[in-house]
Amino acid sequence: MGTRSWQIHRFREREWSSEEDEVAIEYPLTVTVNGEEFATMVCTPMDKEEMVIGFLASEGLIRNVKEIKEMTIDEDRGFAYVETVKSLPQIQSGQKRWLGSCCGKSRAFYFQSDAATARTAMDESTFDPDVCYKLMEEFQSQAGMFQRTGGVHQAAIATEDGIVKAYADIGRHNALDKLYGFLLKENVSRKGKIILFTGRISSEVLLKISKMGFGVLLSKSAPTDLALQLADDLNITAVGFLRGERMNVYTHPRRIAAASGGGVTIE
Amino acid sequence: MGTRSWQIHRFREREWSSEEDEVAIEYPLTVTVNGEEFATMVCTPMDKEEMVIGFLASEGLIRNVKEIKEMTIDEDRGFAYVETVKSLPQIQSGQKRWLGSCCGKSRAFYFQSDAATARTAMDESTFDPDVCYKLMEEFQSQAGMFQRTGGVHQAAIATEDGIVKAYADIGRHNALDKLYGFLLKENVSRKGKIILFTGRISSEVLLKISKMGFGVLLSKSAPTDLALQLADDLNITAVGFLRGERMNVYTHPRRIAAASGGGVTIE
Repeated sequence: MGTRSWQIHRFREREWSSEEDEVAIEYPLTVTVNGEEFATMVCTPMDKEEMVIGFLASEGLIRNVKEIKEMTIDEDRGFAYVETVKSLPQIQSGQKRWLGSCCGKSRAFYFQSDAATARTAMDESTFDPDVCYKLMEEFQSQAGMFQRTGGVHQAAIATEDGIVKAYADIGRHNALDKLYGFLLKENVSRKGKIILFTGRISSEVLLKISKMGFGVLLSKSAPTDLALQLADDLNITAVGFLRGERMNVYTHPRRIAAASGGGVTIE
Repeated sequence: MGTRSWQIHRFREREWSSEEDEVAIEYPLTVTVNGEEFATMVCTPMDKEEMVIGFLASEGLIRNVKEIKEMTIDEDRGFAYVETVKSLPQIQSGQKRWLGSCCGKSRAFYFQSDAATARTAMDESTFDPDVCYKLMEEFQSQAGMFQRTGGVHQAAIATEDGIVKAYADIGRHNALDKLYGFLLKENVSRKGKIILFTGRISSEVLLKISKMGFGVLLSKSAPTDLALQLADDLNITAVGFLRGERMNVYTHPRRIAAASGGGVTIE
């Protein structure tokens, strides 16, 4: 429940192995209230009824469950249809919102404006696992505020020689946006460069990497299944759980593994 | 930069101490494009220009910096005024959005609909530090999917005798909404109960706890300054970095410390 298996390439003790691993499912659920679309939540597809009730209460639309006349959840289409006892005039004003599993956008955005800006990664530069470790180590050691307060994410751009630029923010997406802004301001070429990131690889993060035009994302955290499907489609090498001398390569491993010259036959 | 100091009560090796600690600043920045309000981003107030450029590019409003004619940032009011070279008709359609540092809402919501639903905590039940540790240990040991995939947050309600109900989700807010939905569905009394949470205590999380009607929030992660200001206002005891036998109590420590009968004079 809430996870699915994914075929990964695991690097550990200088050996590659091909294994099945579990990744968290990212599931978009669109909530309609009295026939009006209210919000799309990107969530783990368990306990959806409780989630919708709690969300509507959080938003101030209801105060108790008795105010809900009926709720029907269509699992396959990803819709929750809510009817309230009283009409709620404030929803009619078109305040439709997208709530990602973390921030801002969601799958629905991908299918709209994102479809125009997401692009297939073209850079085929390769990176040795040793380089990945060293970069992550340098990245983490720079994380001053992150380490002091524990509440901040970091994103950096690097070449195999080291970190070029790093940004911190309490919002995962803000840290990536700062990096994107830097790339645009300074007109930095993406060729031979990779992204380092402290946060989880959600679909929204993956799409941002794609828009920015990078082929490799190294994170110390976990990915979601939707992010991995997008990484697969968009030709991006997604690396998670990069900690110490270990990492999981989830998609397009040739950019990492080829450079290590070892072990498992890749693609 | 990006942090401010906060007076905390730290419990470590069975002793209380009163110390200054650094917490991450949560800063709302509203972006207007050609005079129209576009979005409010809750962020770390560093590198704001890069962030706004990157955000506008992520959203597909610009493709390079030359498309920006002028940008003025009003630090005190928390506004970034952007003028683009070409007019952007699609913004005029009122697609104003709020982007929290993680998900969905932001300070602006607090001042609007949240002001109606956030409430001052009334429950004055106290909890011994030993109880807090044991609950966090039980909470973490139940985290099956969270531990397997590493990408999922958990939220639970507990009494001093143990966990009553726990939910998991890739979205921090979804996990809390599921809990809120459970409380409403089952009409559970809040008295003598606390919330356990794996994620960061942002202003949005704190407001949700307030709406749900709890007096104590225990998290293994860090808080932001805005969350602590709200916790202070709303009479909520915010505990962060609860790991092993250590914790930081940021606000209203009497609910924890009083029960431990020791050390520092509290309030």
